[in-house]
Amino acid sequence: MSTLIDYQKFLAERTGLMRASEIRELLKITEGKKVISFAGGLPDPQVFPKAELAEIARDVILERGDKALQYSPTKGVTEFRVTLLNYMKKKGIAVRSDDDVIVTTGSQQALDIVGRTMINPQDVIIVELPTYLAALNAFRLYRPTLVGIPIDDNGMKTDMLEEEVKKLVSNGKRVKFIYTIPVAHNPAGVTLSIERKKHLIEIASQYDILIIEDDPYSYFVYDEGVDITPLKTLDKEGRVVYLSTLSKILAPGLRIGWILGNKTLIDVFERAKQSSDLHTSTLSQFIAIESIRRGVVDRTVERAKMVYKKKRDAMLEALEKYMVKGAWWSKPIGGLFLMLRLPSTEIDTKKLLPEAIEAGVAFVPGASFFADGSGWNTMRLNFSYPKLEEIEEGIRILSEIVKKKLKQA
Amino acid sequence: MSTLIDYQKFLAERTGLMRASEIRELLKITEGKKVISFAGGLPDPQVFPKAELAEIARDVILERGDKALQYSPTKGVTEFRVTLLNYMKKKGIAVRSDDDVIVTTGSQQALDIVGRTMINPQDVIIVELPTYLAALNAFRLYRPTLVGIPIDDNGMKTDMLEEEVKKLVSNGKRVKFIYTIPVAHNPAGVTLSIERKKHLIEIASQYDILIIEDDPYSYFVYDEGVDITPLKTLDKEGRVVYLSTLSKILAPGLRIGWILGNKTLIDVFERAKQSSDLHTSTLSQFIAIESIRRGVVDRTVERAKMVYKKKRDAMLEALEKYMVKGAWWSKPIGGLFLMLRLPSTEIDTKKLLPEAIEAGVAFVPGASFFADGSGWNTMRLNFSYPKLEEIEEGIRILSEIVKKKLKQA
Repeated sequence: MSTLIDYQKFLAERTGLMRASEIRELLKITEGKKVISFAGGLPDPQVFPKAELAEIARDVILERGDKALQYSPTKGVTEFRVTLLNYMKKKGIAVRSDDDVIVTTGSQQALDIVGRTMINPQDVIIVELPTYLAALNAFRLYRPTLVGIPIDDNGMKTDMLEEEVKKLVSNGKRVKFIYTIPVAHNPAGVTLSIERKKHLIEIASQYDILIIEDDPYSYFVYDEGVDITPLKTLDKEGRVVYLSTLSKILAPGLRIGWILGNKTLIDVFERAKQSSDLHTSTLSQFIAIESIRRGVVDRTVERAKMVYKKKRDAMLEALEKYMVKGAWWSKPIGGLFLMLRLPSTEIDTKKLLPEAIEAGVAFVPGASFFADGSGWNTMRLNFSYPKLEEIEEGIRILSEIVKKKLKQA
Repeated sequence: MSTLIDYQKFLAERTGLMRASEIRELLKITEGKKVISFAGGLPDPQVFPKAELAEIARDVILERGDKALQYSPTKGVTEFRVTLLNYMKKKGIAVRSDDDVIVTTGSQQALDIVGRTMINPQDVIIVELPTYLAALNAFRLYRPTLVGIPIDDNGMKTDMLEEEVKKLVSNGKRVKFIYTIPVAHNPAGVTLSIERKKHLIEIASQYDILIIEDDPYSYFVYDEGVDITPLKTLDKEGRVVYLSTLSKILAPGLRIGWILGNKTLIDVFERAKQSSDLHTSTLSQFIAIESIRRGVVDRTVERAKMVYKKKRDAMLEALEKYMVKGAWWSKPIGGLFLMLRLPSTEIDTKKLLPEAIEAGVAFVPGASFFADGSGWNTMRLNFSYPKLEEIEEGIRILSEIVKKKLKQA
């Protein structure tokens, strides 16, 4: 039918913007193979509080089913929004008097809504190099000009940020917002130092830029003495838009995220969300209320810390033991990922992947996370999902493959 | 902060497209007042299968929690997609060999995805006059040219559709798709006759147009002998994209909808959905699998028929008894709504609303549902949510208000 053929052509342009993840295609090879996979991003299901959630789900449906199964307001179930505000305050996230909160269908929807309402074609958006791929996917749909700022062990290099902002401003460009994942960065695994956080806030204030702070991980860091003060708390001008989610501290299958920010913005986010999906699952929200209230989230956080710390330690020890000298890798204080950078820029980890899979290990080639196409000699390694006892072996195999490749390079 | 002020200006343009529902503002007046409301659209909670859902929720979390609480594929949990395909086949909805199905976060997301992937600015989209407001909201974001076709007791007037399509084609315009709610139309309450369904399919075939068939209601019609053959089944060319939802036949709080259509389109819908919210609530999908499997959806359908038929009958009887002569109202064979059109085009029901609320009854003024701004003397009346015993009194009060207004007009 010509209509469908026309649609294929028409949609080819659209799908250029919504490109199928080539990495996802590559990784499909792992299905059915015996492969130790560092390529996922899934939380470990042993962290899910199944018994408690089963009871809570049953209770909220039986006792509050008239509301829990019904349509609910776009901005979120009021009781849940209040619960979230209190939970955030308890965790040291400052809630201003001119703030509001909206519930989203996961953080992904928050990113899509931010992109949809805030990005005009060619607007300048600043991101870290690398950054969260799903955020790039969400933002790119709205055709921004992406400017990337490199990172190191202490997160985004804010001196380079300041230079770049000055340059853009002197060229008459307006920066719409800076998107940052300050704690336990995905994919880089690094955390923004407190000095750089303050510097970032200063730059944003001086040049009148908004900050989108994406924080899924600060609730369960593995090490003591690390500064995890949110940008939202350091900010005294209401210019930080704070995103978070229950995906890692309760369960991702519920699709519960939220945005905390200035009322003006939340109001517009609400209108965008309304036409997107009317509202987030009411049942999930009622389950979330009870999960926070009954301490299930707190206990899940403790279990996450315990399970993931061991796995992180196993991966770091194995890298110390086996990985080639000259390689750099991050030492994450939280989260689910670390990034590995190979000593030679002549190795393209995307080309390395099929060999690695053949040898029995998978990873995510890092270049997709870099908005400027660099980073081809990096890879993201997930430690939350593989079995603890497989991690050393997986790193050992990976290191062999890398050594072999370096000899050839 | 100037950034926020700039954002307010910037977003004022965007919010023109995402306009706050003025009706919603008007209806806020009802909060706290003793009002019989025909202005809602909520299913009656007595229809929700609470006891069974409580057990199912508990079971799926305990027995399948590792998957039910985890991230899941964008297109939907495979087992749920298979369950949906079988359920649709059982209900007489034809599934073609080149079809696929995607799970959406309610029908609203399906409408947003259709708009996002299929509408270029100024593309011609054909809708009924009136049509589902939330669909207009979703489509308008993408700036189509909306062309409306009037309806009568037998649904869209397909003779006028044919004339309009011919005119558009002769003016070199391409119609992207026709959006229709064939059974128990929201807000109009009418159902497309089988003759017109066939005519619609012919027109779409002759002029190579896609059809978006939105069908939340055909699963629970109240009267025997009504033809509810889906357009999807009459279509032999794969040009119907079929949308449906569990909102009225299980519970809306789960946010479960789906799209059945050609693989090519579903593939693009999948990419749009991925950046929108990654995937629909996994827990909701597992609950839905069991609800279909254990016959809970079938039993909910029976209960919905029983509860809503009584209410529909009560509203129709009361209109017969009290409403002014010369008024027209639809006689819905299913769904949750009927439409009332007042005999004089000099009455604007939006202006009537505050008086009606003062007298103790609320409705939704119909003009917002008309893409061309007509229909100002119509109103949508919901019968699913008010109490059965209130319906007659509500219609009586409404009729008094209308009579009074007509005397003045």
